[in-house]
Amino acid sequence: MSYTVSDYLLDRLAEQGVTEIFGVPGDFNLQFLDHIVEHKNISWVGSANELNAGYSADGYSRVRGLGALVTTYGVGELSAINAIAGSYAEHVPVVHIVGAPSKENQANHLKMHHTLGDGDFSHFMRMAQEVSCAVADLDHATATAEIDRVIREVIIRRRPGYLLLSTDVARVETTPPQEPLQTDVALSSEGAQKAFRMALKEVIAGKEVSVLADLLVHRMGAREQLNNLLKETGFPHATLMWGKTLVDESDAQFAGVYAGVVSDHRTRDAIENTEVLISAGVEFTDSTTAGFSQKLPQNTVHIRPQSSRIGNEVFTPLTIKTALEIVLDVAREYGAKPYPLQKEAEQQSQKIDMSAPLTQDILWDLLSGELTPGNIVVADQGTSFFGMANRKFPESSMFIGQPLWGSIGYSLPAMLGASIADRESRGILLVGDGSAQLTIQEIGTMLREKINPVIILINNDGYTVERAIHGPQQPYNDIHRYQWDLIPAAFGAGKDDVLLFKVQTAQELLDACRITNETRDRMVFMEIIMDKDDVPQLLNDVAKALARANSQ
Amino acid sequence: MSYTVSDYLLDRLAEQGVTEIFGVPGDFNLQFLDHIVEHKNISWVGSANELNAGYSADGYSRVRGLGALVTTYGVGELSAINAIAGSYAEHVPVVHIVGAPSKENQANHLKMHHTLGDGDFSHFMRMAQEVSCAVADLDHATATAEIDRVIREVIIRRRPGYLLLSTDVARVETTPPQEPLQTDVALSSEGAQKAFRMALKEVIAGKEVSVLADLLVHRMGAREQLNNLLKETGFPHATLMWGKTLVDESDAQFAGVYAGVVSDHRTRDAIENTEVLISAGVEFTDSTTAGFSQKLPQNTVHIRPQSSRIGNEVFTPLTIKTALEIVLDVAREYGAKPYPLQKEAEQQSQKIDMSAPLTQDILWDLLSGELTPGNIVVADQGTSFFGMANRKFPESSMFIGQPLWGSIGYSLPAMLGASIADRESRGILLVGDGSAQLTIQEIGTMLREKINPVIILINNDGYTVERAIHGPQQPYNDIHRYQWDLIPAAFGAGKDDVLLFKVQTAQELLDACRITNETRDRMVFMEIIMDKDDVPQLLNDVAKALARANSQ
Repeated sequence: MSYTVSDYLLDRLAEQGVTEIFGVPGDFNLQFLDHIVEHKNISWVGSANELNAGYSADGYSRVRGLGALVTTYGVGELSAINAIAGSYAEHVPVVHIVGAPSKENQANHLKMHHTLGDGDFSHFMRMAQEVSCAVADLDHATATAEIDRVIREVIIRRRPGYLLLSTDVARVETTPPQEPLQTDVALSSEGAQKAFRMALKEVIAGKEVSVLADLLVHRMGAREQLNNLLKETGFPHATLMWGKTLVDESDAQFAGVYAGVVSDHRTRDAIENTEVLISAGVEFTDSTTAGFSQKLPQNTVHIRPQSSRIGNEVFTPLTIKTALEIVLDVAREYGAKPYPLQKEAEQQSQKIDMSAPLTQDILWDLLSGELTPGNIVVADQGTSFFGMANRKFPESSMFIGQPLWGSIGYSLPAMLGASIADRESRGILLVGDGSAQLTIQEIGTMLREKINPVIILINNDGYTVERAIHGPQQPYNDIHRYQWDLIPAAFGAGKDDVLLFKVQTAQELLDACRITNETRDRMVFMEIIMDKDDVPQLLNDVAKALARANSQ
Repeated sequence: MSYTVSDYLLDRLAEQGVTEIFGVPGDFNLQFLDHIVEHKNISWVGSANELNAGYSADGYSRVRGLGALVTTYGVGELSAINAIAGSYAEHVPVVHIVGAPSKENQANHLKMHHTLGDGDFSHFMRMAQEVSCAVADLDHATATAEIDRVIREVIIRRRPGYLLLSTDVARVETTPPQEPLQTDVALSSEGAQKAFRMALKEVIAGKEVSVLADLLVHRMGAREQLNNLLKETGFPHATLMWGKTLVDESDAQFAGVYAGVVSDHRTRDAIENTEVLISAGVEFTDSTTAGFSQKLPQNTVHIRPQSSRIGNEVFTPLTIKTALEIVLDVAREYGAKPYPLQKEAEQQSQKIDMSAPLTQDILWDLLSGELTPGNIVVADQGTSFFGMANRKFPESSMFIGQPLWGSIGYSLPAMLGASIADRESRGILLVGDGSAQLTIQEIGTMLREKINPVIILINNDGYTVERAIHGPQQPYNDIHRYQWDLIPAAFGAGKDDVLLFKVQTAQELLDACRITNETRDRMVFMEIIMDKDDVPQLLNDVAKALARANSQ
């Protein structure tokens, strides 16, 4: 086979660290898939449907730094578009490649399958444009340049990009990339750095300082600079739920997860009462702040992806990386001190009735205690996310959720993607029965790919997160009851492929966790029976705020 | 509770024949759902996910004349949007109601959950606009007028419409509709009628005539006029696959399903060699014509939804109904005759080895022989659709597929919707394992709703329709193997809720069908094991045409 635009696109993705591509075959992408099958560094992971493929590419990207999926024109791409929008909202770089009818058939406005039948072949690209940082309808003359442009934007902006690849353009002969894509264009001007340093000195010299960090530190690749700052200065620090596990939560100066008025007292004190707060890569959303209840000190240094702000003065261009380095420099030089973090409240050695039905608050306490370093925990946006979000995680573990986009059903395919991106780390999926039903078929792909996650299925008989917001007794919050312990086998698990548990008490949970920790060679599927109205405290607080917003 | 915009919307839908609404709860629509629960004529059907809700609303509408679904902002509506696009392509009227954040929160551009976080609350409505005939962002002042406008357009144009319903607008007090919505605005001018009559006379007087009819006759509500014409004149007639079951296929003058060069010889002769062809509500697509291989006689009368054409003369405004009535009048008055339909080829009493593995061609012969009047058959767009499309159906049965949009996975949720729209008629679902995996969870809703369809699952180990087009041996056309006989139980079927069969031979198939015909009180789930490369003849022909188009 000669070298084609398809190969060029795959080589660019491989160069950026992509080794697996998710998706569903369709007749407009089949020939492109041939090139994936033959690519020496990229493998095809067939998903059970396109939405799931999109979620998997998102989970993969959060771990690997870039993800990709392939769908077919119209039917396929639109099925995936909610996942793409989620990647946009959550700052996740994903390349969506869509197989399309040939340019000639498009130009003839043919009434082809997978079209609206009106001869307009641009409907779906216009839709993609709303949820992408860059889109391209690849053509014969400019395909490789456009591929470079879109992938570069995706990586720089940490948002999804869209490539429409017609059957004929996919076959166009071309030459391989001559040099790696230039993606490190983020820069900080000397002037901005100097001005920021001077203004910073005025604010933090000799002062007590805390740090609040959030997901954009992760997305902009500035974790190292953040962790240096924290280690060298000993500043107490918190993250929001969105940025959870950005910092080592076992560190003595970790103040917890900040969520406005519903945070622990110790966390609020560290963030709201410090003399100076360094706020790095922070995005406040309604659900991470219980309805925008955050309260930052007057002296807050706002560090954003391309600019920083102190009072009314804005410093730009200035990357998060550089800004954090300057903070460390200035803090050292001018004697900024750690704000005194309150002592952690003595863990009340809570008396747990080991044989009583599990409650949400006990469940998440016990489960978080079972986490081990390196775990990748993916939680769906209900009791699972809010139950786990303010529990302490071990070092080098990772917490993945969707607090802004909040699409239920995300977690299961995202766990698949995250585990394929890092097959060494053990994946822990936390999902309620209400959320799991939306995307359950991806468990089949988990089995085929032998990624062996621990699936913790909270069976609380419906949409408990919705009950907490509105209509606790309403029938629309009920769901049809599955026989969950048959689900893995129905989706193709053999007898030795899965370890099944059904848990109702604390003792059963701990027993199941013990065996789980000893078993690494198969999937674990643990169904935990919970009361349908029981809600973790944090979710309860957040749900009240959301209900208020909906009644305004 | 006082009477609100929510009630008004529901009353309008009920007035147009909607008695069930599909969807998934989300916090921005929960209060609207309260009004559904309390509505005296409308019930809530909770779907397993939003794409499935959209497919169900589509299937429901094809049977009932109008369907509706409710989703939540962003995450929910985008998950459903492929189904909405399908309804657009296939001329199916569906109202999509989307719960949204309050107008005040939108005006404040808050970074709320289920948004992209950029403060722009119009992204998703712009996306909906591409696949809707009418959209409205309901506001306090004009909500009821806008509801009327959108529903009216949906019904007149037979396309989906979109209503964005903020939490606060849903609560606005209003008065009930004072009179029924005027939806019968289609009209035919006297001038157009007169001119059409005269031109028609020139063409058909004393001539031999055949009729080709397609789905727009169904969508525009002109079946009665078509059937009158056929009964009174005895004109031989065919439909395309898209319009299959529009006419009574047991009629002696039924010439079969016309699909261009791949039609039966008798069908081609009736359509292509007649002196005059009446083409009513016909849309030629690549997959219904094996790549646009249709060949109409020079003397063809083209009857379209709002206009007719003879030669270069266009007559408009002229509805299909009126045009067909005029054809009948003129045919009688001026002695148009039926084109002589060839005799049906003697059914070669095919020697079937009853204990050999089933082949596709034998399977569809046998299955179509088991259909009974009144069956609603929904087929997914693979071997199932093309296998059944050219088999003869009994009278008053219905065939539902998606030959233009062709979204695999459509059939199972659409079957649910069609069966809920008509609980009396028995539903027959024809779906391959490749397609079934995309939307399999809706089987749980079927069980909860106790609709008891016959599910015929063609287990041929992957995407056989794709193999027929490209890459028969390629791994991307394989899927993970489920244990299908556990699927109903896993999704909650009790022992007495489902009758399970696993069929490999003709004898086993006929035995299973016999028991199925005697059993009406539960779901039937019949897994049929087929060879993965075996393809019905019609699909083989169509697939070759599609492969050609992709290599141009």
